[in-house]
Amino acid sequence: MTSSTVEPCKSEDFQVDIEKNQQDVRSQWVLNAPEPPSPWHVTIDSVKKTVSNYREKVSSLCDQPCSTLFSALQVVFPILVWGRNYTAAKFRKDVLAGLTIASLCIPQSIGYATLANLAPQYGLYTSVVPPLIYAVMGTSREIAIGPVAVVSLLLSSMVQKLIDPSTDPIGYTKLIFLTTLFAGIFQTAFGLFRLGFLVDFLSHAAIVGFVAGAAIVIGLQQLKGLFGITHFTTKTDIISVMKAVWEAFHNPWNPHNFFLGASFLVFILTTRFVGKRKKKLFWLASISPLVSVILSTLVVFLTRADKNGVKIVKHVKGGLNPISINQLDFNSPHVVDVAKIGLIVAVVALTESVAVGRSFASIKGYQLDGNKEMMSIGFTNIIGSLTSCYVATGSFSRTAVNYAAGCESLISNIVMAITVMISLQFLTNLLYYTPIAIIASVIISALPGLIDITEAYKIWKVDKLDFLACIGAFFGVLFASVEIGLLVAVAISFTKIIVISIRPSTETLGKLPGTDMFCDVDQYPMAIQVPGVMIIRMKSALLCFANANFVKERIIKWVTQEESEDDKGNSKSSIQLVILDTANLVNIDTSGIASLEELYKCLSSHGKQLAIANPRWQVIHKLKVSNFINKIGGRVYLTVEEAVVANNKSNQF
Amino acid sequence: MTSSTVEPCKSEDFQVDIEKNQQDVRSQWVLNAPEPPSPWHVTIDSVKKTVSNYREKVSSLCDQPCSTLFSALQVVFPILVWGRNYTAAKFRKDVLAGLTIASLCIPQSIGYATLANLAPQYGLYTSVVPPLIYAVMGTSREIAIGPVAVVSLLLSSMVQKLIDPSTDPIGYTKLIFLTTLFAGIFQTAFGLFRLGFLVDFLSHAAIVGFVAGAAIVIGLQQLKGLFGITHFTTKTDIISVMKAVWEAFHNPWNPHNFFLGASFLVFILTTRFVGKRKKKLFWLASISPLVSVILSTLVVFLTRADKNGVKIVKHVKGGLNPISINQLDFNSPHVVDVAKIGLIVAVVALTESVAVGRSFASIKGYQLDGNKEMMSIGFTNIIGSLTSCYVATGSFSRTAVNYAAGCESLISNIVMAITVMISLQFLTNLLYYTPIAIIASVIISALPGLIDITEAYKIWKVDKLDFLACIGAFFGVLFASVEIGLLVAVAISFTKIIVISIRPSTETLGKLPGTDMFCDVDQYPMAIQVPGVMIIRMKSALLCFANANFVKERIIKWVTQEESEDDKGNSKSSIQLVILDTANLVNIDTSGIASLEELYKCLSSHGKQLAIANPRWQVIHKLKVSNFINKIGGRVYLTVEEAVVANNKSNQF
Repeated sequence: MTSSTVEPCKSEDFQVDIEKNQQDVRSQWVLNAPEPPSPWHVTIDSVKKTVSNYREKVSSLCDQPCSTLFSALQVVFPILVWGRNYTAAKFRKDVLAGLTIASLCIPQSIGYATLANLAPQYGLYTSVVPPLIYAVMGTSREIAIGPVAVVSLLLSSMVQKLIDPSTDPIGYTKLIFLTTLFAGIFQTAFGLFRLGFLVDFLSHAAIVGFVAGAAIVIGLQQLKGLFGITHFTTKTDIISVMKAVWEAFHNPWNPHNFFLGASFLVFILTTRFVGKRKKKLFWLASISPLVSVILSTLVVFLTRADKNGVKIVKHVKGGLNPISINQLDFNSPHVVDVAKIGLIVAVVALTESVAVGRSFASIKGYQLDGNKEMMSIGFTNIIGSLTSCYVATGSFSRTAVNYAAGCESLISNIVMAITVMISLQFLTNLLYYTPIAIIASVIISALPGLIDITEAYKIWKVDKLDFLACIGAFFGVLFASVEIGLLVAVAISFTKIIVISIRPSTETLGKLPGTDMFCDVDQYPMAIQVPGVMIIRMKSALLCFANANFVKERIIKWVTQEESEDDKGNSKSSIQLVILDTANLVNIDTSGIASLEELYKCLSSHGKQLAIANPRWQVIHKLKVSNFINKIGGRVYLTVEEAVVANNKSNQF
Repeated sequence: MTSSTVEPCKSEDFQVDIEKNQQDVRSQWVLNAPEPPSPWHVTIDSVKKTVSNYREKVSSLCDQPCSTLFSALQVVFPILVWGRNYTAAKFRKDVLAGLTIASLCIPQSIGYATLANLAPQYGLYTSVVPPLIYAVMGTSREIAIGPVAVVSLLLSSMVQKLIDPSTDPIGYTKLIFLTTLFAGIFQTAFGLFRLGFLVDFLSHAAIVGFVAGAAIVIGLQQLKGLFGITHFTTKTDIISVMKAVWEAFHNPWNPHNFFLGASFLVFILTTRFVGKRKKKLFWLASISPLVSVILSTLVVFLTRADKNGVKIVKHVKGGLNPISINQLDFNSPHVVDVAKIGLIVAVVALTESVAVGRSFASIKGYQLDGNKEMMSIGFTNIIGSLTSCYVATGSFSRTAVNYAAGCESLISNIVMAITVMISLQFLTNLLYYTPIAIIASVIISALPGLIDITEAYKIWKVDKLDFLACIGAFFGVLFASVEIGLLVAVAISFTKIIVISIRPSTETLGKLPGTDMFCDVDQYPMAIQVPGVMIIRMKSALLCFANANFVKERIIKWVTQEESEDDKGNSKSSIQLVILDTANLVNIDTSGIASLEELYKCLSSHGKQLAIANPRWQVIHKLKVSNFINKIGGRVYLTVEEAVVANNKSNQF
């Protein structure tokens, strides 16, 4: 570009000299770049930054104890900030939203506690303390905190391998509290040490597949309640469950449960459908689960259907959350396993909560502080484990209802908690005749929202390998177990990263007409290859042990192929120069450098030259330190264009 | 560059129009690139290529059966090619080299067989058949095939976990043959399916650390022989071995073994030192092990020192390799474990052989075909397992001696094999009085060459994370076990790939003076940032679930920080445009696209624009399919320069 657009008003020789000088100067820029920070320094810097961040906060607290104590409290309890601008109008909206989610929350809590193999009251407990704690600490405005389906399923499927809940329900419940404590500690630690990225390790695609699979598994578990089956499998995979259902049908079974459950399921789904069509009637969808519970309880109470085989909840222990500190047994032989389960549950719970929080924050146009969120949820679970709660997190379905009901702040969570509290204190006796089939119907009705086929189709369209992670997680959960589904998802996601990063793929570059850009000739078919020069760019970020040798051999093969084509009399000129455009290479390792050295040896033994164009910081540094630059005669250029120009000149003179 | 160097001889408006048009055309090039091949197509293409490669060979064989049968034979047996030009002068050199390596091979084979917990003759068997097979099939000219130290150690440490060789030596030997067969099958399969890259999974740095650790472990194992210890540990880690040695010293022990072994070790090391100083005397170093064996055997025979506690080899079964087909027990309960061990041994053995072959090939200036090499070694081991051999591969030390002795072709391997064959037939009785301490000395003397401190220092200088893999493998082998050392090395190497690939690191770009290049302002301190525009480039190859969210939050933080600095009255203009230079990004996933969408929403809610510059093939394709390009108003440019120019223009008009 440079030489072609300049008018010939200056002497051409002079121009060439200036260009040559400029180019030398630029090559010097490449070669004499300052030393990049070592990995050690990068790590230290990052730790220092985190520490100084906290130190600043603490020191500013020490300097002005009075005013900043309050501002520190404001950081820990955001309610002190937004509470100041809270108005009666907002409160009215929050009360309405709070009552709406409470009506959904009560049947769901009972159902999820059953899913977690716990007594029903533990689900209700988990809807009291955690929302209160989160309301004063959380930064989201819409999240509805409490027990959720996926976490309940995950907990029961993992903890029941340690203690069987049917033989030792008390020991099992204790382990659940311990798991909750560990999960809370891990979540707080993630926030404190700014390890928020751990939550990102479950990719979006994996979550879509995992949640869809979990929804089906949860639905299958509800078949027990819906059909009133007594003997059911403890496994969660589809084959074991279908077998258990099949066997149950071969024993005499009572259809009353199914008809009761199914009819109310149809009712709930119909109101949901109406609510979606007419936005004004959305409250109908929200309260229909509670209405179903009340109606069906009345029906059973009036007809005494429980005598005819309709299974009922029976006794739900009333009263507020009892303290459970004395139930945390750190001397349990399972403590290490429980810690592991706590870690997995912590990550899954945070993933759900952060995903929910972020999506509603982005709708309302504010940013969620991931690390602060983790600390809030973590602290919520730590306190929860001391007050007979199991793992709580932000619920997909109730948060959506909360938002639709027009919540303004976390006060709606407080309203919900108080409502559940009142129910626990005074209304548990009324739950005696509630049919289990209805609880199952309430849970099943929440599941279709978790299976996002549109999103799965979009993933398929955009990224086939992402879809593989999605479908892997889905089938893993469905046919193996919840943990294996998670494992498959994470494994596929990371394998994908490795495969893409080290894929020994290269592209040939050509010059785009009218520019001095060199681009992939496959991506830009109009690009023109330079005769006598082979310009190659890696398609990965690393030239390392896993791909360096393959790349070297491919380049040598290409060069020799071009040569042999010449022998047959083709018009192609023989390759004099191989330019390696290292723009993509973020890093190189010792195996990569060794391969480049072998490539150089091989090329120079055939009378060809090797040049490096556009090396990144780490790459040029390592090539310099390992003395490779001297070996290739300092042929390093800022751009491919300059490498080509330099070659033409050296051929001229 | 374009606008600044053009003389103002044309109307400026006209010029601007042309530029605008050109730029639009180039943006269209970016947007209308052909669709990149899907991962599915890439895989299918690669499989097709491999299959068609073989099919061509077969079909050309069918067309001209006579001439091409011979050329096919030439491919399988390269000896048919190079054998034609073989001369008497070359033969003389090969005989000399063959005898030299045979003299080193006999004591080493006995020692390595002992290291593998096998009877001495199996080491000698392995020096007969494998070299003969490899000589007709291999493509290297220098490799000396036979038993090697690292593979012997690896075999014994893994197989003895299945069957204890001290209680059931016959069963153990059978398992070793089975492992050898599996290793051979895996190696052949690697070559056949062109999986040569599997060998590259052990990085150069990991091999340096692993081999050094293994050398020390092998040396420690020889303390048993050197001190004549009867009760020794079967573990290989340094702590168990030192404990066993310590305990042995507390029992009455016989110093004769040690004095005999140590004095000959000094002799061997001295001759080696002399050989290194005076190149002409290198043969002295090569034959000194055999001389030591002969001298020490004579000394023991004449003084009857075995009656005074000097441990001797005793009976070595004479005669040629017996057939061992009937010893391969596929119904063994360990067959799955043995297959796994076979896979690990196959990779380690190939790594050593290919590394040795490549380094000498590059010295002599020819290329080694990795896939053909694997098939040759694999076939060698398959035949070996049928003729009482254990896993053979190219030996570091003997190949170096072979090269130094002036070998010209693989005929030296045949000479070596015949020499060992003769020894087996006629001379095994003479080995009766050979002291075990001498065998230990011979093995120990070969170890210093495996510990490459210079290379380790070079790795430390060039790449700190590579050094971590090196030192991890070293300590893993030394303090845990050989397998754990390997595992640590592979794990660190792959973790490094993941960390570098997804590190959520970004760099700010500035314009290099006198060019239209935009470069990292840290790498090029002379680069000038464009006011009002923030230009950011990812430092990784992937924008994916693991880093997308972090990158998004960092960019938003930067932009808001710049803004808040403005508020304090700084002269910095506020950011109007964020340009994302995606040149480094080889790929993006659905999480990455979702993050970009959130970034765009956040920026546009603050009145800022987002532009994409220089997207690669996969990235632009996915951004198009997911409709992101339309959302940002088609702001995609070929270069950062064009994005900046387009922004200036839209501000002007």
